[in-house]
Amino acid sequence: MSIVFNPSVRCQLPVLLLLLQGILIGLFAVFLSYDELSSATSLANITVANTHDLDTYFPLFKDVQLMLFVGLGLLLSFLKLYGFGAMALNLVIANFSIQWAVLVQGFFYHYRDGKIHFGLENVMHAEFAAVTALISAGAILGRSSPVQLLLMSMLEIPLFVLNDWLINYYFHIIDIGGTVAIHVFSCYFGLGVSRILYRPGLRAGHSKNITTSTTDLLSLLGSIILWIFWPSFNSVLAKSAEARHRAVLNTFLALSFSTLTTFAVSSLMDKRGRINLVHLQNSILAGGVAVGASADMMITPAGASGLGCIAAFSCILGFQYISPFLERKLKVQDQCGIHNLHGLPAIFGTLGSILAILLDRVDTGGHNLHTGFTPDISIGKESLILDEVEVNGAWNATDQALNQAAALGVTFGVSLLGGYITGLLIKPPCLVHPSDEMCFDDQPYFQIPIDSEEKWSLNPKAQRELLVPLKQV
Amino acid sequence: MSIVFNPSVRCQLPVLLLLLQGILIGLFAVFLSYDELSSATSLANITVANTHDLDTYFPLFKDVQLMLFVGLGLLLSFLKLYGFGAMALNLVIANFSIQWAVLVQGFFYHYRDGKIHFGLENVMHAEFAAVTALISAGAILGRSSPVQLLLMSMLEIPLFVLNDWLINYYFHIIDIGGTVAIHVFSCYFGLGVSRILYRPGLRAGHSKNITTSTTDLLSLLGSIILWIFWPSFNSVLAKSAEARHRAVLNTFLALSFSTLTTFAVSSLMDKRGRINLVHLQNSILAGGVAVGASADMMITPAGASGLGCIAAFSCILGFQYISPFLERKLKVQDQCGIHNLHGLPAIFGTLGSILAILLDRVDTGGHNLHTGFTPDISIGKESLILDEVEVNGAWNATDQALNQAAALGVTFGVSLLGGYITGLLIKPPCLVHPSDEMCFDDQPYFQIPIDSEEKWSLNPKAQRELLVPLKQV
Amino acid sequence: MSIVFNPSVRCQLPVLLLLLQGILIGLFAVFLSYDELSSATSLANITVANTHDLDTYFPLFKDVQLMLFVGLGLLLSFLKLYGFGAMALNLVIANFSIQWAVLVQGFFYHYRDGKIHFGLENVMHAEFAAVTALISAGAILGRSSPVQLLLMSMLEIPLFVLNDWLINYYFHIIDIGGTVAIHVFSCYFGLGVSRILYRPGLRAGHSKNITTSTTDLLSLLGSIILWIFWPSFNSVLAKSAEARHRAVLNTFLALSFSTLTTFAVSSLMDKRGRINLVHLQNSILAGGVAVGASADMMITPAGASGLGCIAAFSCILGFQYISPFLERKLKVQDQCGIHNLHGLPAIFGTLGSILAILLDRVDTGGHNLHTGFTPDISIGKESLILDEVEVNGAWNATDQALNQAAALGVTFGVSLLGGYITGLLIKPPCLVHPSDEMCFDDQPYFQIPIDSEEKWSLNPKAQRELLVPLKQV
Repeated sequence: MSIVFNPSVRCQLPVLLLLLQGILIGLFAVFLSYDELSSATSLANITVANTHDLDTYFPLFKDVQLMLFVGLGLLLSFLKLYGFGAMALNLVIANFSIQWAVLVQGFFYHYRDGKIHFGLENVMHAEFAAVTALISAGAILGRSSPVQLLLMSMLEIPLFVLNDWLINYYFHIIDIGGTVAIHVFSCYFGLGVSRILYRPGLRAGHSKNITTSTTDLLSLLGSIILWIFWPSFNSVLAKSAEARHRAVLNTFLALSFSTLTTFAVSSLMDKRGRINLVHLQNSILAGGVAVGASADMMITPAGASGLGCIAAFSCILGFQYISPFLERKLKVQDQCGIHNLHGLPAIFGTLGSILAILLDRVDTGGHNLHTGFTPDISIGKESLILDEVEVNGAWNATDQALNQAAALGVTFGVSLLGGYITGLLIKPPCLVHPSDEMCFDDQPYFQIPIDSEEKWSLNPKAQRELLVPLKQV
Repeated sequence: MSIVFNPSVRCQLPVLLLLLQGILIGLFAVFLSYDELSSATSLANITVANTHDLDTYFPLFKDVQLMLFVGLGLLLSFLKLYGFGAMALNLVIANFSIQWAVLVQGFFYHYRDGKIHFGLENVMHAEFAAVTALISAGAILGRSSPVQLLLMSMLEIPLFVLNDWLINYYFHIIDIGGTVAIHVFSCYFGLGVSRILYRPGLRAGHSKNITTSTTDLLSLLGSIILWIFWPSFNSVLAKSAEARHRAVLNTFLALSFSTLTTFAVSSLMDKRGRINLVHLQNSILAGGVAVGASADMMITPAGASGLGCIAAFSCILGFQYISPFLERKLKVQDQCGIHNLHGLPAIFGTLGSILAILLDRVDTGGHNLHTGFTPDISIGKESLILDEVEVNGAWNATDQALNQAAALGVTFGVSLLGGYITGLLIKPPCLVHPSDEMCFDDQPYFQIPIDSEEKWSLNPKAQRELLVPLKQV
Repeated sequence: MSIVFNPSVRCQLPVLLLLLQGILIGLFAVFLSYDELSSATSLANITVANTHDLDTYFPLFKDVQLMLFVGLGLLLSFLKLYGFGAMALNLVIANFSIQWAVLVQGFFYHYRDGKIHFGLENVMHAEFAAVTALISAGAILGRSSPVQLLLMSMLEIPLFVLNDWLINYYFHIIDIGGTVAIHVFSCYFGLGVSRILYRPGLRAGHSKNITTSTTDLLSLLGSIILWIFWPSFNSVLAKSAEARHRAVLNTFLALSFSTLTTFAVSSLMDKRGRINLVHLQNSILAGGVAVGASADMMITPAGASGLGCIAAFSCILGFQYISPFLERKLKVQDQCGIHNLHGLPAIFGTLGSILAILLDRVDTGGHNLHTGFTPDISIGKESLILDEVEVNGAWNATDQALNQAAALGVTFGVSLLGGYITGLLIKPPCLVHPSDEMCFDDQPYFQIPIDSEEKWSLNPKAQRELLVPLKQV
């Protein structure tokens, strides 16, 4: 029997998962110890992050959990025959990425005395890293196997941590909501992977690439859940209560104006004025992506609102004109339109943050933009950076604006190249991957019910034959 | 081409939305500045609201967001062919209403030195105002276009703010959960609008006014989500931790007893004892509506429980006997039964608050009802009112009871008349509105999927023809 | 007419519910008064629980509400024709159980000066009691009527309170997450009831015992919601911020490793490597069940992770091998597989807690396991117990390990016997129960829509005939 060399799900998925779990538990046993909040007193003047305690972090942690597992899980479940592929693989990719990021980020930022000091803060940061893998997976949804997605996450997480460290350490990027660090990175990484996994056979459409009213409605529900908790996501890393308050308000306004703009522009795009459901499911979130880089600045309520409008505009225009171009000309298939929701709005958001920095506006409240210049507690910020910054001394708006632009450029390059190479590494035919015919279909990976009353009358053998007409099994 | 005068969705919806968004951003730019919580110290002794900070408000804000967008969105999605009409229009109406209410309430209550001081508290209050528009929309669900609903909200929000100010300023109403200010107002406003938009053609039923098991189950889920977060809604404006604690407990008990009473009474109404799903989706919430006016009083656990039972009773009797009467005799169609869920229980709840005031019960804990008489921080409460009250000096139960009754009467009159006039203003045939045949149908407003596997095989042109057999396009 | 003696839904359900509601309101009126948190100062040194205030409890209360009503409600709704039976009966059983547990636990723990002092803490504890009834009901889901389930809850709640008191008072069990008190108890109680209600007619399968893709997906969604809030459940009763922090982390890790193990092992069980949806919906939660007894201990991140793996393993093996054995050999039908999700992982979790106690590990943080020995604020912990413990003086690991084992044994015996007797009491044919043919079907209890467009064209009488082909009506 040719079990070992056959790309069978049963041979590869359990082996890979059990192996990963075993290795992770082993490394946890050697390196992880609880991060006692009480023992942090001696370090109080260098690590601001320690002032975040359970009461502050735990509610936001649950918000992010809801976004990742319920919001994103539902949003991705829009395909008629690939609901479990979306929601359950989202669960497995997210969990593996979090476990893996706890270790990688731990070695980068929380390693002292031979131990990674592990607490809720680590899990939060690891969830932000996991978001990256989940967004990238959106580009190849339904066209890749769980095995490929797990390997992709394994490669993407360290690169994300490295790039995040780079743009924080060298460019002191202001990016409280991860507009560059998360959205730009994950988008172009995913598109890089997708370029390599390009399937010419899917160019003319696919009979299983369809939605139903119910799946589209649940997907919209998922989008709404992401929408509700996005202010938590963009504000969790704020360095003061005031900044957090502003981040919440600006994000809410950007999202709210994104939403109405989505209805307006999507209606305008259709000959009969009907809203496109794909626009609706995605573009209402564009404002949250865009405002991430400036959410804690004094960009004024009108500024946040306007940014939300622009973000939604760019998202819908992306779906209408850029996605078809990417597929036809550049051979990049983007199943969930991550370039429209994460790429374009994030670029506009970064430009917005540069503009806000250059304008250096002072609000009537007496706060000026310079308060935004002391680097915030970004994802995986090392305490060393704070010292570095204090040594650097003087700041000016032009330097910071250039830094923002440079960080955007670096992230673009790193992620695209990284995605390209990762795509090559997960492409080999020895790895499980669905045939063109079996794309967008749960059947290779899940024992799904036959949606008819005849199910129970079939004998088990006949059922199994019916369910799995797979070549690779 | 007769674009301008044709009631086409594409001509009216985007134009109206973009216009509204532009105007709002313009007004935001001129009038809105961040409300710095830190700058509130000088006003500390007149504005109790400022003691609410981010940590108190933010979790409750998210609860209310979940109620509005997920809970209500799902609850309204009970129609087989109008799921997007329910959930997506809920989203658009809510967002516009919040933006608009931020301005209107801002000019009423937060305008100082030429600026509206904007913070999370404003958004909270604006969401309460938005609830009003969403409830009223329930009366005409599926029979009105997004354009009509937006115009209705534009008119309803200022009237709500005015009425709320009136019953607080002149009648010092005790109404922590908005039983009168929100539920009575929105119910009779909606019924007023519905009276004008009466459609004789729908009298004999409608082939699209149908549900499925899945939509009914999701609607029940939405109701349960509202049920879970109702204690947050009724307690957010409490003026002390104790009062908030009581508001949570009383609301929970009222809801819990509503729920069991719903099962009992609904079963009793059916010849075979089967629960009616419409009763179930609505009546389990009746206790939350009713207890709003007395949630922070010492009404005792048994009192709250009993009120929940009465509310559920009235709600189911309303569905069974009063709704048919309203439709046949008074020509008021009430698609979601808002009179049964919001009107009747709110009236009983106000009577309950009057009774509680007159009974003036003192609990063993040493707290008496008079603590409830100092006006709470109600929706849009102006700090001036507090001074007013202190000047007024002595209070007595009979006066307050009369005030509660007067506020109920005033709200009833204002909302019914306001709804009537609003109905006239949004009725003109030049505005987009669905034909009788296209009521309860998503197709005029959304590019919905055809729920069959044949979809992909149709050419795009044929698909479009099939999807939109609309007269008004 | 033989209304009274016929086991008709309409005769029994409303009468029972109204009777119970009346009695409960009466008892509430006599015995319940608000528990003023402010009056607790005089008791400060004996009741640690009083330090939990609204800000601590309210968010966790809402998390538990979401778990009970949304998470569990959805998880149970996996049957195609029994969605309302699952979600709505979950609602009614939970509410009655909470109301009833407030009284029973109130008399046990909060009765002073002729009054039960009622606060949010009581409701929390009552919800934990209600969980027990809901889990037990899972064993007989679809095979029992609402009347039977209400009577079962009425009997189970006091027994739960008694057993919980027993294992805390006599065995000082360490069990912050209710692994023994809740999961072991409810599992074997449910199996005891199920043994008595055994239906030979269902042995060969049932044509209505089927799922659809949509119901399976919603059930998975429910499971994910439970998964997200499980750390709240396991940490709510922690006695210090540090212990709560640890409980959150350990529970998260156990769940996360459960999830990946579920995918691995379930895939391994299928000839073609496909994930079984029943495994997926249940086994991802197994880690949360298992880690409950040791969540606040210093079991190290690796320990929690490993426990999660073992729990998921045992859960899937249970579904594969033990459930069929229970049904065929012991005549115990277990519809939701509560033995696999609650029984087996809880037993392994208790063994894990014993091992952790015996290992007596000291972490680098300087905390040792003995801090775990001072009894935590467990469910329904009486303040007297704390005194008792202090008098007892010395503790040692072996004693505590024996106590854990004894508590497990006692709970097993009490629950199995209690369930057996309860089953006998709710079996009599005079109580409403579905015929074999009407099992797993909503129609006897709910006026469900006919899922077809023909519905509206049927006259009401014909509709009713079609809907209820019930013998017992």
